[in-house]
Amino acid sequence: MLDPDRLLPTSGPEKAIGRALYDAVADLPILSPHGHTDPRWFAENARFPDPAQLFVVPDHYVFRMLFSQGVALEDLGVPRMDGGPVETDGRRIWRRFAEKIHLLRGTPSAMWLAHSCETVFGIEDPLTAANADAIYDHIDACLARPEFRPRALFERFGIEVLATTESALDDLRWHRMIRESGWGGRVITAYRPDAVVDPDFAGFAENLEVLGGITGCDTSTWEGYLNAHRARRAFFKEFGATSSDHGHPTACTLDLPQKEAAALYERVRPGGASSADAEAFRAQMLTEMARMSLDDGLVLQIHPGSMRNHSSQVLQRFGRDKGFDIPTPTDYVTALRPLLEAVGLEPRLTVILFTLDETAYGRDLAPLAGVYPALRLGPPWWFFDSPEGIRRFRETTTETCGFYNTVGFNDDTRAFCSIPARHDVSRRSDCAYLATLVASGRLREDEAFEVAHDLTYRLAKEAYRL
Amino acid sequence: MLDPDRLLPTSGPEKAIGRALYDAVADLPILSPHGHTDPRWFAENARFPDPAQLFVVPDHYVFRMLFSQGVALEDLGVPRMDGGPVETDGRRIWRRFAEKIHLLRGTPSAMWLAHSCETVFGIEDPLTAANADAIYDHIDACLARPEFRPRALFERFGIEVLATTESALDDLRWHRMIRESGWGGRVITAYRPDAVVDPDFAGFAENLEVLGGITGCDTSTWEGYLNAHRARRAFFKEFGATSSDHGHPTACTLDLPQKEAAALYERVRPGGASSADAEAFRAQMLTEMARMSLDDGLVLQIHPGSMRNHSSQVLQRFGRDKGFDIPTPTDYVTALRPLLEAVGLEPRLTVILFTLDETAYGRDLAPLAGVYPALRLGPPWWFFDSPEGIRRFRETTTETCGFYNTVGFNDDTRAFCSIPARHDVSRRSDCAYLATLVASGRLREDEAFEVAHDLTYRLAKEAYRL
Amino acid sequence: MLDPDRLLPTSGPEKAIGRALYDAVADLPILSPHGHTDPRWFAENARFPDPAQLFVVPDHYVFRMLFSQGVALEDLGVPRMDGGPVETDGRRIWRRFAEKIHLLRGTPSAMWLAHSCETVFGIEDPLTAANADAIYDHIDACLARPEFRPRALFERFGIEVLATTESALDDLRWHRMIRESGWGGRVITAYRPDAVVDPDFAGFAENLEVLGGITGCDTSTWEGYLNAHRARRAFFKEFGATSSDHGHPTACTLDLPQKEAAALYERVRPGGASSADAEAFRAQMLTEMARMSLDDGLVLQIHPGSMRNHSSQVLQRFGRDKGFDIPTPTDYVTALRPLLEAVGLEPRLTVILFTLDETAYGRDLAPLAGVYPALRLGPPWWFFDSPEGIRRFRETTTETCGFYNTVGFNDDTRAFCSIPARHDVSRRSDCAYLATLVASGRLREDEAFEVAHDLTYRLAKEAYRL
Repeated sequence: MLDPDRLLPTSGPEKAIGRALYDAVADLPILSPHGHTDPRWFAENARFPDPAQLFVVPDHYVFRMLFSQGVALEDLGVPRMDGGPVETDGRRIWRRFAEKIHLLRGTPSAMWLAHSCETVFGIEDPLTAANADAIYDHIDACLARPEFRPRALFERFGIEVLATTESALDDLRWHRMIRESGWGGRVITAYRPDAVVDPDFAGFAENLEVLGGITGCDTSTWEGYLNAHRARRAFFKEFGATSSDHGHPTACTLDLPQKEAAALYERVRPGGASSADAEAFRAQMLTEMARMSLDDGLVLQIHPGSMRNHSSQVLQRFGRDKGFDIPTPTDYVTALRPLLEAVGLEPRLTVILFTLDETAYGRDLAPLAGVYPALRLGPPWWFFDSPEGIRRFRETTTETCGFYNTVGFNDDTRAFCSIPARHDVSRRSDCAYLATLVASGRLREDEAFEVAHDLTYRLAKEAYRL
Repeated sequence: MLDPDRLLPTSGPEKAIGRALYDAVADLPILSPHGHTDPRWFAENARFPDPAQLFVVPDHYVFRMLFSQGVALEDLGVPRMDGGPVETDGRRIWRRFAEKIHLLRGTPSAMWLAHSCETVFGIEDPLTAANADAIYDHIDACLARPEFRPRALFERFGIEVLATTESALDDLRWHRMIRESGWGGRVITAYRPDAVVDPDFAGFAENLEVLGGITGCDTSTWEGYLNAHRARRAFFKEFGATSSDHGHPTACTLDLPQKEAAALYERVRPGGASSADAEAFRAQMLTEMARMSLDDGLVLQIHPGSMRNHSSQVLQRFGRDKGFDIPTPTDYVTALRPLLEAVGLEPRLTVILFTLDETAYGRDLAPLAGVYPALRLGPPWWFFDSPEGIRRFRETTTETCGFYNTVGFNDDTRAFCSIPARHDVSRRSDCAYLATLVASGRLREDEAFEVAHDLTYRLAKEAYRL
Repeated sequence: MLDPDRLLPTSGPEKAIGRALYDAVADLPILSPHGHTDPRWFAENARFPDPAQLFVVPDHYVFRMLFSQGVALEDLGVPRMDGGPVETDGRRIWRRFAEKIHLLRGTPSAMWLAHSCETVFGIEDPLTAANADAIYDHIDACLARPEFRPRALFERFGIEVLATTESALDDLRWHRMIRESGWGGRVITAYRPDAVVDPDFAGFAENLEVLGGITGCDTSTWEGYLNAHRARRAFFKEFGATSSDHGHPTACTLDLPQKEAAALYERVRPGGASSADAEAFRAQMLTEMARMSLDDGLVLQIHPGSMRNHSSQVLQRFGRDKGFDIPTPTDYVTALRPLLEAVGLEPRLTVILFTLDETAYGRDLAPLAGVYPALRLGPPWWFFDSPEGIRRFRETTTETCGFYNTVGFNDDTRAFCSIPARHDVSRRSDCAYLATLVASGRLREDEAFEVAHDLTYRLAKEAYRL
């Protein structure tokens, strides 16, 4: 099913160069410094329930596409907020998926599925309506075997380190359980404080009280609130965290005098903040987080520019993360300036920028990352974690900020089996780009081998301080 | 003159795949569900006047390029608003065109011209200043022959259905005449209500009265006004319409409470609306039209984002559609939200989105179309109906919304002979893209053949309910 | 070190076509109608100080990249505003550069460096930390020889004409000295009036007085101020100027009634203008300059959209032009309208537009240049003067405005040895694009040879009236 030369150049001198570059990095360990897998999997090491729960129900790439063509989310087993009935029969969900599999043609989801089916489950035929049941049975039988349990797959995938992402209020119980289990797999957490940084987050005021309670800090004051963050960051570091992550609607930052910041905190603390205050507070907190990073060494990741929950009906019925998060034009040049004025010239700080607005790659992001010591560019994100997305990223950033202001690949996934598939797509796409540079006289072959290794392994290891 | 392999991949395994895919779709019937040809041609079936009237005078792609290099529009026979003298000698216009033909190098107009000359008129030499007279004579002699009359060309081009676009106030006399003639060609209309939906349209207030007169509805009230639209839509459906079309400056939509909408109508009805009211009214009407579409099944097309008549001097001297319509950055994510909140989850509704802002393809449009059941993406439009434009469209949308949230090709042309040329460019460009996917292991060959057929024929037929 | 086929197509029929096209233009004279080399070099014809002063210290492309990875600007010899100590040992700067040379991989700077080393200095090995001293010694020894003096290199590079850029207040002494020397090299100036047009420019009020003093015009009045510009433009024309150049933050233009313009001038003249008045004044002056161009024939260049000096600390410590100028989204369609309404239909006027916002190429700039007789598109600028940048420029503009609304290449450089390197990259990149058009049947081979010559030579000559 899989073309062994997929995504590599198909002719010319770049064909052989691309193949050789890929062969040199194909089997390197996987570093996954940012993602959304569930640490409970590795803590409990229970079997995955069934093929639909593995490939369809939790994967918003898949169910959004089916929904766009008239398949009800209920029929795909997506849980309702009100607990109302949805399909629970994995086989029926799987059949619906198979019937509509053509909708994924040309998408990375199709490649990830094929890669998982073939390399994880040994399936050699493409999924169709006709073979849906047989493939379901085959995967389901595999899942019952010990070598398909989460930890076994983790090892088989060659994962050297895997970061999950937890709320600032999380007790990290699954991470603790992993550690106490004595298992050797390196699963680390990352600090995601949206619930206590974003005044628009549901339950913000209560969350601040919880934050005070679990840290013993007085979150009714600005200084106590900042200390509570410091305490949680230290706690997350105990469970391996090397980074924090921030998913704000915009990339706005502020660097208010501390007195004004304290007054702003006073206004947003009780909840019901104005939207201007909410935006200002998120903006101020990015700069505060950057200052904390200078102290404790956590890498700061900024994932801005998604308008969440575009359909209020879908939000109400099915909740967040249901495929209705839509990218928006995102400013970085003006937005990041307050943070950069404060700490941007610090080589000890690492701020990794992501975008859902590809127009920013060449115009804003590469020029910024190509001069500020604190800045690095994250890999193509979400809709752009794809062969064409990776190609555009390299073509529009490399000439301005080079390779060494980028940080290797993130899979950023909730879908465990897609991890090796996504890293493979990234390695192939980067090698294809490098081969093109070599064949057109823009890079020497010896340099390309070194860069291929750097993009696959070293840059992620260094940027994320793994 | 024409390279038989033009626009297909030139080497590697994709070369043969692309050729095979193209061969499979090259001769499929043409579906032209959106365009601006003149139904009078097919009603009267008179001969086209002369080569200049066929290729130069009505083609803004051509005369704008000559104008940009100092050729006066008068010298190209473009009529003046004041009826003042312009060139009327077709041969002299043709010679001026031939002298400047190098300006079109690298543009789709050059390809369309070559395709028409060779496939329609059997000309094998490129047009030059030297052979301008000979080619003029040859085309002119052809036009005198019955097999070059509009209906004969329609049949020879293999057009299965051709949609024109008429104002809501049009009496559709030419469509009636076509129907009554007994000719078998399927020429249908489409409902374009700008004259009675856009308060900035010249004569808006009078147009509303005319609308009332021809429908017998009381357009002095909001409800009567909406009923008048319903009546006209029903009338247009009698003449084959399957779609409405809306060419607003922006993609803004609103869904006001009906009482507020009625008050807004009251304000704009007399003419002289404020620009905020005009924008709000257009926005509200898109949502109203979508609701009517749910009732009567017309497909809603939105063509936003052109700043019309950028030069006021040219507008004053030569009128609208003279090449001075310039694209502007266009928001969809916020702009369409009111309409989508109202009816976006309805699989029975089809809203087809077009853009002149290519940055929206991957950032806004594909993510929206990849999740909302009511949304589909129209093909590359206007300046982007070109080999590079089509490539960029596929490369930036397919990975997010697949092929099946797109609707095949529109030629959108006023230039009759360019119809087969444009469809041929589209088919070749899509096959080139598909071949690239196959050769790089992203799509199986059997899938590619099915998708090629879908993009050429089935998707247009289904999306436009032809 | 240099691949003789670099940047040309690597396979398929386009490979041979590209090579043939390039061979036909590779040795044409260099026209450099816009740049920032120092006329003093050609006036004094002194030796260049050392390799670091030639390749590192003045090249913001290079030192910004090293700075982005933690190398202090002081250690690269970049002068401090306060005259404080920085590295003065060229060899130590060169070693630091060589140690970090991998940071430039994939950037045009790497190509320019390799081209200069090989073609100017005969070096055949890539620069590394290991051979840094040897290469330093070799270049340094060359620089001591007469054939490496500025005038000798000018001739060896095959430069037919080279434009520098001087402030409106410059006395053009070096240009005078060049002329009086009797040397045959054609070095001309260009009129850059930012210091007396931009109310935000340091010392604006004083500059106006100086302008009055050197022209004998009464710059305390609007009319006298305009006359002073006319006088300076005439003076610059005596030293060969064929163009003016304007580097505003935006592309905004205005065409106020003269009385309002005079009142605006009255407000900004004393300095301390509001930012709205400053923007309005710059905007008005673009239109005034365009009107003067109609009188005196100078070509008007607009280079908008850079947010200068993003880091205030770097500005304070090292001054302007230190790599902290960041592109911003740039509007042209609305912004240029006042100027275009005033003079845009004049074929005698040439306004050349540049951009740092690539999204404007296809959406705004090509549609505007494809219809307004006064407009032409400048080549890819700054971060986009690169193989990928040139490819994207051609791919997104040609289909709409053709080749003949573009103006050939500008090197726009401060780095003398990069001139032939940059022109070579441009010629190869354009030939690669043309070869692709020919191989895919979009352009005939005879046309491609003519266009290649036009893009390399004729268009620059004509557009800049050289």
